[in-house]
Amino acid sequence: MDAVLRQSKSMCPFLKKTSPATLRSLSTASPARQSSPGGGSMSNLQTIARRCPVMGKALAVQTGKAAHVGLGGAAAIGAIRAFTGKSGSNKSVTGKARIHTTRPQEARAIEDTLFGRERVPVLQHAKPPIVEKHNGPKFDYEGFYNAELDKKHKDKSYRYFNNINRLAKEFPRAHMSNKAEKVTVWCSNDYLGMGRNPQVLKAMHHTLDEYGSGAGGTRNISGHNQHAVSLEATLAKLHAKDAALVFTSCYVANDATLATLGSKLPDCVILSDSLNHASMIQGIRHSGAKKIVFKHNDLADLEAKLASLPSDVPKIIAFESVYSMCGSIGPIEGICDLAVKYGAITFLDEVHAVGMYGPHGAGVAEHLDYEAHANGHPRGTIMDRIDIITGTLGKAYGCVGGYIAGSTKMVDAIRSLAPGFIFTTSLPPATMKGAETAIEYQMLFQGDRRLQQLHTRAVKDSLDDLDIPVMHNPSHIIPLLVGNAELAKKASDMLLDTHDIYVQSINYPTVPVGQERLRITPTPGHTREFREHLVSALDNVWTKLGIKRTSEWASEGGFIGVGEAGLQAPEPLWTNQQLGVDKVVKEMKAGGPVGVMEALLERERGERENVERAVSAAA
Amino acid sequence: MDAVLRQSKSMCPFLKKTSPATLRSLSTASPARQSSPGGGSMSNLQTIARRCPVMGKALAVQTGKAAHVGLGGAAAIGAIRAFTGKSGSNKSVTGKARIHTTRPQEARAIEDTLFGRERVPVLQHAKPPIVEKHNGPKFDYEGFYNAELDKKHKDKSYRYFNNINRLAKEFPRAHMSNKAEKVTVWCSNDYLGMGRNPQVLKAMHHTLDEYGSGAGGTRNISGHNQHAVSLEATLAKLHAKDAALVFTSCYVANDATLATLGSKLPDCVILSDSLNHASMIQGIRHSGAKKIVFKHNDLADLEAKLASLPSDVPKIIAFESVYSMCGSIGPIEGICDLAVKYGAITFLDEVHAVGMYGPHGAGVAEHLDYEAHANGHPRGTIMDRIDIITGTLGKAYGCVGGYIAGSTKMVDAIRSLAPGFIFTTSLPPATMKGAETAIEYQMLFQGDRRLQQLHTRAVKDSLDDLDIPVMHNPSHIIPLLVGNAELAKKASDMLLDTHDIYVQSINYPTVPVGQERLRITPTPGHTREFREHLVSALDNVWTKLGIKRTSEWASEGGFIGVGEAGLQAPEPLWTNQQLGVDKVVKEMKAGGPVGVMEALLERERGERENVERAVSAAA
Repeated sequence: MDAVLRQSKSMCPFLKKTSPATLRSLSTASPARQSSPGGGSMSNLQTIARRCPVMGKALAVQTGKAAHVGLGGAAAIGAIRAFTGKSGSNKSVTGKARIHTTRPQEARAIEDTLFGRERVPVLQHAKPPIVEKHNGPKFDYEGFYNAELDKKHKDKSYRYFNNINRLAKEFPRAHMSNKAEKVTVWCSNDYLGMGRNPQVLKAMHHTLDEYGSGAGGTRNISGHNQHAVSLEATLAKLHAKDAALVFTSCYVANDATLATLGSKLPDCVILSDSLNHASMIQGIRHSGAKKIVFKHNDLADLEAKLASLPSDVPKIIAFESVYSMCGSIGPIEGICDLAVKYGAITFLDEVHAVGMYGPHGAGVAEHLDYEAHANGHPRGTIMDRIDIITGTLGKAYGCVGGYIAGSTKMVDAIRSLAPGFIFTTSLPPATMKGAETAIEYQMLFQGDRRLQQLHTRAVKDSLDDLDIPVMHNPSHIIPLLVGNAELAKKASDMLLDTHDIYVQSINYPTVPVGQERLRITPTPGHTREFREHLVSALDNVWTKLGIKRTSEWASEGGFIGVGEAGLQAPEPLWTNQQLGVDKVVKEMKAGGPVGVMEALLERERGERENVERAVSAAA
Repeated sequence: MDAVLRQSKSMCPFLKKTSPATLRSLSTASPARQSSPGGGSMSNLQTIARRCPVMGKALAVQTGKAAHVGLGGAAAIGAIRAFTGKSGSNKSVTGKARIHTTRPQEARAIEDTLFGRERVPVLQHAKPPIVEKHNGPKFDYEGFYNAELDKKHKDKSYRYFNNINRLAKEFPRAHMSNKAEKVTVWCSNDYLGMGRNPQVLKAMHHTLDEYGSGAGGTRNISGHNQHAVSLEATLAKLHAKDAALVFTSCYVANDATLATLGSKLPDCVILSDSLNHASMIQGIRHSGAKKIVFKHNDLADLEAKLASLPSDVPKIIAFESVYSMCGSIGPIEGICDLAVKYGAITFLDEVHAVGMYGPHGAGVAEHLDYEAHANGHPRGTIMDRIDIITGTLGKAYGCVGGYIAGSTKMVDAIRSLAPGFIFTTSLPPATMKGAETAIEYQMLFQGDRRLQQLHTRAVKDSLDDLDIPVMHNPSHIIPLLVGNAELAKKASDMLLDTHDIYVQSINYPTVPVGQERLRITPTPGHTREFREHLVSALDNVWTKLGIKRTSEWASEGGFIGVGEAGLQAPEPLWTNQQLGVDKVVKEMKAGGPVGVMEALLERERGERENVERAVSAAA
């Protein structure tokens, strides 16, 4: 049975691409078409079948045998003839090519062959051109763009970009289009302020002067250099993997890697967490591989889906460590266990975690074996068990670019096969050098990420005290539930206009309709005055706009982690002990004055400044 | 008929994805299966039909009516049941989620809806897990990577990257992994040496200091700033379009724009030049739209294909101005004419042309109306007629990144809909500022691109004199035909090892097997001594390795533009008059001493240095 099933799937893309629910509904008889040419009742599925030139013909033959040649069958035969060009001519109209046109037999980049399995064939229209056709009405492209934009205006998903110029010397401050108009940025992904780190900038200035502004080519053609070699070695070391490969972004890294693996691995199935980032969704789509979505962070659901697949079929489990819009954290160890049990490989996106977790900033996977990694023993750890880790150089590392890390062979295969890697200009030497400097800095120094975590805790606590609906999670992300697109935008606008605070509203399609939110990302630079300002501004905006407080959500039974009965905020991933503040926090929780927390933060900040100076002197 | 045809195509992906040739061969009766369950002869197409759970069921119903229920039909019914889960259970195994796992009802990025038309549905396996399965053999992933790499080693397409560190202060020189080992780079796409331009570097240093190393977010979330606004305004001005949009690369710009338009425009057909770049091929593939490949630069073939399509169906003609691996130039005006006639829009990739052609460096489209643009009259020109222009900031402009330019609504639609734009970190402020500085510099100053053209002519002439097989074209690219992968790599290695010259060999899959070449790209920095060195080194390598000369290709009847009887080198796109050297070149062609050309080049270089100083002083 399995063999027939698989064969059917491989033969019919309609089946492969149509959901079981749709198939089910199609297979019910349509009241409007109860009488088929073959007599008896006919389902919608059969009606569709008649329109298919392949099957239509077969149906017509069958029906013919039973002396019931229907219109559908005849039309289908006509259609198949038109398609295969049997009644057409292959002669094309000849004409004179214009000047500056080189002849047709030149070389082409034949990347099609890279994706043999999902090759998109060329539609050949062998029918003689119907010259009259071009006198008919033309498609209205501008009207179409306009209609698409109208839709976005109507459903409030149209995006207005804010002109935010983050000032390196006044972090986390920025100026608007008017330089005199300054605001505090509370939603940047430059989580650690590495974009203004003096070592990073120094390294970049030096590299710019020595090697110029750009790489000047793809990695294969003059764009490979010592900066790429060194950065990839550092990334491999960071994740304790054999090799790493740098891409222009982690969007491209995820897209290119999943698309390549999914299309090359024979009959590959990709199991994807329901909250995965757009780049993974696109990569899976582009692979043409089968996709099975499992419920967010639900190991039982994932196992059920894995167990339904043959053991020898290649499978990729694609998931994240920190989900950026809600701050939830993936069950990495459990997924590794399932991967081993069911013969899958793990693809872990640590984009929002690198630089932020673990003794060396390698991410959540490293954090889960904090002591082992701190002591230089990566073998056998959870991070060691992950097959492919992807990360970014553009968030906690403050630059731009993305990467994958894993086994030598896997990395070499992607290097050799992925068009998104092969056919694009390399990152500039200065960018690669800056990113490497940031990674090395964060491998040595934990102060930034600890201070970031403490600021996160402080903000979450203050907002809880004011009944402002924090969607609690174990990470450094602070999502505040608003639940309405217009209201979320108004809150963001009011924060900016009235309070000089920039927090972008997060609306559809980044989050589902009804789950709109503000997403706050504290950094080590968000010291006491900034935090107090933020919290009071939010309180003011919540009141002015009448946005629901946590207690109001609770009175309605709660919603997506806010105000739900019996729900407790999950423990932060960074424990009190790992932050080195267990004693002080205990005092604080026992009712000590708020001043204790602030004193602690001041102490951390002082320590950080000392280390920054020391590292600077050593550099 | 057309309506049935289009309906059939939209209903059956098998038909859409299977080539007419395959369909034709499948529709012939198979000798091995002459007897069908329905009696009569049966084609392979019908055999396949029986394996399709959708059609198989319909066939079974038909056959049932005729009292001929075959095994195929029964199996198909079973298959469809298994797929739709009718005989299975929807209950999933429950289990305990691990710690640090947030609940499943959190938000997800629901980008699926952005691509409504080509949405990849989720395969739901509702059958109860077969627990025994996981004890079977597992897929060998490392073995698979290894096998893929072996294939590349065997067909000589495995790529070895050269460690090339281009020195800003010694352009066009670079050092290898050992700093003392210096080479001259002859294959960079930093065509004008803007990567070392003092104005560009100065602007980048300043921006780095003021705004830091990274953008810190997507364009929507804290990554939009004055640098993006200003760069996009400059790009729109450059191409005389209403608007422009910057991406992390032109690979992403092409991929994201074509994928978005092709998937959103209803029933869109994309007509693609057969030599289009990988990024366009991928974008078209990712769009899921119908793709029709037309012969390289063949207007007659394109027209025949356009004429075969209904007038009101949206169509995109995707092509390039300079094809980078052979240097051919697209018939832009002719394509614009056809686009108007058949209601298509034009998508022109000017990646290898921006900065290089036209009075302001806007590309070949601008160059074709040189005087009009030089006099500030873009309306009604060929460039004005192009709907979408794409370009890069990473080649002639010396930085990194890509863009599209076109109408306000089109650009806004892509900005609002393309995941590859929406969900990725913006380019760093310093990169955007550097690129803008380079564009503005090249808008004002023509000296770099004129000198580049003169160096190109000088190299082509010298190589012709030595019977070295230049694949002639009207552009700045100098491809030398080798015709063998191993030999091309050996030539590249020998140039590097023996002559300290870096020219990467271009092998499959960038060019087809048998068309392997060396691709040389002169710059304004390749002065006399560098050119003489290159030409003598190539002569030496050609002799040592016994690579065919032009006359040898000619004696075999010629091949892809080399040594073909009666073939004349096409006129360069930059005319003698446009280069301001018509008189001198006439003298030279009349047999004047080689010194004339060199004197001319020296004069151009002198002028360039003066302008560079003047621009520098004014900045």
